[in-house]
Amino acid sequence: MLKIGICGYGTVGQSLVDHVLSYNKKIRSNVSSDFTIARIADRSIDKKEYPKDTIVTKDPLDLPADSNIDIIIELLGGIDLPYKIITESIRNKKHIITANKALIAEHGDEIFQLAKENNVYFGFEASVAGAIPIINTINKNMANENIISLVGIINGTCNYILDQMASCDMSFDDALSSAKELGYAEADPTFDINGMDAAHKISILSSLVYKIKSPLKKTYIQGIENITSMDIKFASELGYCIKHVGISRKVDESIECMAHPVLIEKENIFSNVGGVMNALMVKGDRFGTSMLYGNGAGGKATASAVISNLVDAINFATGVDISSIHISNNSASNNISIKNYNDISSPFYMRIYAEDISGVMAEITKILAKESISIEAVTQHEPADKNSLIPIVMITNSVSYLSVKNSIKKIENLEHVKESVFSIRVLKSDEK
Amino acid sequence: MLKIGICGYGTVGQSLVDHVLSYNKKIRSNVSSDFTIARIADRSIDKKEYPKDTIVTKDPLDLPADSNIDIIIELLGGIDLPYKIITESIRNKKHIITANKALIAEHGDEIFQLAKENNVYFGFEASVAGAIPIINTINKNMANENIISLVGIINGTCNYILDQMASCDMSFDDALSSAKELGYAEADPTFDINGMDAAHKISILSSLVYKIKSPLKKTYIQGIENITSMDIKFASELGYCIKHVGISRKVDESIECMAHPVLIEKENIFSNVGGVMNALMVKGDRFGTSMLYGNGAGGKATASAVISNLVDAINFATGVDISSIHISNNSASNNISIKNYNDISSPFYMRIYAEDISGVMAEITKILAKESISIEAVTQHEPADKNSLIPIVMITNSVSYLSVKNSIKKIENLEHVKESVFSIRVLKSDEK
Repeated sequence: MLKIGICGYGTVGQSLVDHVLSYNKKIRSNVSSDFTIARIADRSIDKKEYPKDTIVTKDPLDLPADSNIDIIIELLGGIDLPYKIITESIRNKKHIITANKALIAEHGDEIFQLAKENNVYFGFEASVAGAIPIINTINKNMANENIISLVGIINGTCNYILDQMASCDMSFDDALSSAKELGYAEADPTFDINGMDAAHKISILSSLVYKIKSPLKKTYIQGIENITSMDIKFASELGYCIKHVGISRKVDESIECMAHPVLIEKENIFSNVGGVMNALMVKGDRFGTSMLYGNGAGGKATASAVISNLVDAINFATGVDISSIHISNNSASNNISIKNYNDISSPFYMRIYAEDISGVMAEITKILAKESISIEAVTQHEPADKNSLIPIVMITNSVSYLSVKNSIKKIENLEHVKESVFSIRVLKSDEK
Repeated sequence: MLKIGICGYGTVGQSLVDHVLSYNKKIRSNVSSDFTIARIADRSIDKKEYPKDTIVTKDPLDLPADSNIDIIIELLGGIDLPYKIITESIRNKKHIITANKALIAEHGDEIFQLAKENNVYFGFEASVAGAIPIINTINKNMANENIISLVGIINGTCNYILDQMASCDMSFDDALSSAKELGYAEADPTFDINGMDAAHKISILSSLVYKIKSPLKKTYIQGIENITSMDIKFASELGYCIKHVGISRKVDESIECMAHPVLIEKENIFSNVGGVMNALMVKGDRFGTSMLYGNGAGGKATASAVISNLVDAINFATGVDISSIHISNNSASNNISIKNYNDISSPFYMRIYAEDISGVMAEITKILAKESISIEAVTQHEPADKNSLIPIVMITNSVSYLSVKNSIKKIENLEHVKESVFSIRVLKSDEK
C-alpha cells in the first residue's frame, strides 16, 4: 500500500482528490500496488471536505519528514516553500509530483540531479500546458530523433485576450477585464501578460527537448501589453493573426528560447487555437509537424495531468516502470549556447506612426535599406482625421533583430515620426 | 545485445533502418541495452541498401523460428502471412511491433491474449494515425478517467480529397486523380475511399479506449464516394465542412463505433485539419477536449512511431518498463454492446433533388413531421436551367437514423423527387 501526501488543497488539490476517489478502480487497474491519500497539508483548513481516513495537517513542512509517506504531490505555488518541501522529501527518498512551473524553471536542474541521486521519481506533466501530455510526448514518443522546433501557445490568458481583441474587436483593457470576469486571468495577471509564465514553461520544454540546463535566465521575454487592436487589424489585413507563444528551436548549433508575441499566417492550423486553449506544435526531423491541443489550465484538467504522473510514480516505486531514469540520465547532458534575441533571423512586423507629410515613407525606406532590410508587404491607412498620425505597417524580409532594432532607433529620430516604433516577430510556417 | 528482425523492407522498412542507423546514439540513450538489426526479410531483394552485418533473407517465415532474434518488427501488409509470423513469433517468446491495422482490427483480441500469456511486448503505435502518438496517449495519459468520445480524421486520402473538393472546387474524380498523382492515394484506393481503412483504425482505438473486443464487425462504415461538390458547397453555406471521421463514443451504456463522413461546424478547430493530415479529438470527463494532430502516413513518420515502440520493447525486454502488462490485463475486460447505426441519435444533413414544382417542399416536410423530424436549417437553390432539378438541402434536429432512413424511403417515392436522397451525420461540438 503506497501512501500519498498532498501539499496544498486549493482548486487543483481538491480536483485531484475527487479524481482519485471517483476513478479509483480505473487508476488501480493501471498500477500493481494499492495506494491511498494518507495526508493532506492545507494551510486554510475550513469547511472543505477531506477524504475519510486522511490526516489533515496545517504545515506542509510536516510531510517531508513523515516516514509513512511514499509519494509527495506539491500543489502549493510559490518557490521557496515548495523548493524546501521537495528537496527534503527527495532526500527522504520520497517520489515527487509537482505542477509548479516557476520552481522547475528556476531550480529544476538541481531537483533533477537530486532525484537521480536518490533514485526517486520526479514528475511535472501538469507544470506545462495542463492536460496536454506534452512532457510525456517529448520525453517518450519524440525522444528518438532531432526536434527542429517547438512552438507553443502556453499562456491561456494571453491567448484569450488576443483572441477577444481579434474576434470581438475589443481593446486590450476590455479583453483583460473580460478575462478576469470569466476567471481566465488572476487578480494580478502581471506574470501572464508580461510573458513570464510562458517563459517558465518554454524554459522547461527547452531543457527537455534539447537536454540542456534551464535556459530561463537567457530567455527573451516580451509580453502582450503593447499590442493594440490596430496591430491585430493590420496583421489581419496582411494575412496574419497575433499569438503569444513560447519558441524553442535549434538554429546553427545554438538554441532560440523565447516567449513573445508573433504573427502567424492565418492558414496555419495554429492560428485557429482560440480562447484559453493551449497548443504545442513540434517539428521533428522524421515525424514532421505534430500538434497537441487542449486545456492549459483549470482544476480538473491539471489534476488529470497530475494523476497520469501519479500512475507513473506508483509504477516507478514498484519497479514496474523505471524508464524515467533514462530521462534523468540524459537531462542537461548537452551544453548548447542560447541565442541572443539580437541575433535571431526572422521577418518582423513593424508599426510606425508618422505625420501625414510627403517624404516620410521615403525616409523610412532609406533607413531600412541601409540596414539591408527590405519590405515584403506594407499597409498604410488614411489618418482618422486631419490632425491624427498615419499608421504605417510593414512586414520585413528575414533579418536579424539587431538590424531591426538599429533601424527602429533611427526611424524614431525622424522629425515626422511620432510615438515609439513597435515590432513583432513573424513566424512563417516554413520556419517551423 | 538485443537482436531485431524486420519483416518487410518497403518504404517504412527502409525509413526505419535509416532512422535506427542515423539516430542510434539518441535511441541508445533511451534504453538500457544495446541492440542491432540482426535480420531483414525482403521478398524482393534487389539493389536496395541493407545495413552491414545484417542477414538478409527472402522468406519472412524464417524469422519467427530464428532463436537469435528477440524483437520482430512486422511491416509486410496483408493479413494471413503477418498473422502467422506474429503468432509464431510470440509463441517463441519474441516481442512484437507491427504497423498492420487490418491485422489488429481482425485478430488483435487473439494476439493481445497470446502476448499476455507469453509475457511479450506487443506494440502497434504506427497502426493508427502514423506519427501521432494516439495509442500511447490513450493507454497512458488518458487512461485514468472516462473517455466521453474520440473522433478522428484518420484517413489522409479521404481528407485530402474532401479538402481539395472544398478549397479548389474540384470534383471527386479530379480530387482523387490529384491524390494519386501526389502519392496520397494508392493505385487501388478502394479501402481508403470506402471507409474500410478508417473502420480498421477506429475499431482499434475503440477497443483500447473502452477495453472491449475489436468491434470491427459491428462498425458502421460509409465512404466518401457519394459526396459531391454540391454537398460541400451546401454544407459550407450552412456553416459546416465535410470530413470523413472515425467515431467512438459511449452513449447510454452502449458504444457508437463508426467510420463515416460528417458535417462539422467551421468554428471547430477540427475543421481546419487540411490536406492529408490526421487528427484525433478526444473528450475526457476531466481533461476536457484534447486534440492530437500530425502526419498520418509516410515512411518517415510511420517509422518514427515504430521506433517509439522499439524503445518500449527494449525497455520491456530488459525489465525497465513492463507497465504495458496493465494494458494487456485490462484489454477486452469490458463487455459493452455496440450501437446499431439505426439507433444513433444525431442531427443529419439531407440532400434531395426534386422537380421545380410547387408543393414538393410541403410533401417533404409532411413526411418528416410524421417521423417527428424537424428542420433546423434549409437551403434551396434555383435550378441550373429550366429542365434541371432543384437541390433541397437541410439539417434536421437530433433524431434516430432509423427515422431518417424511413423518411428517406418515403421521400424517394414522391412523384417529383428524383435520384436517391443522400444523408450525412452532423457532428455538433457539444456532442464531442
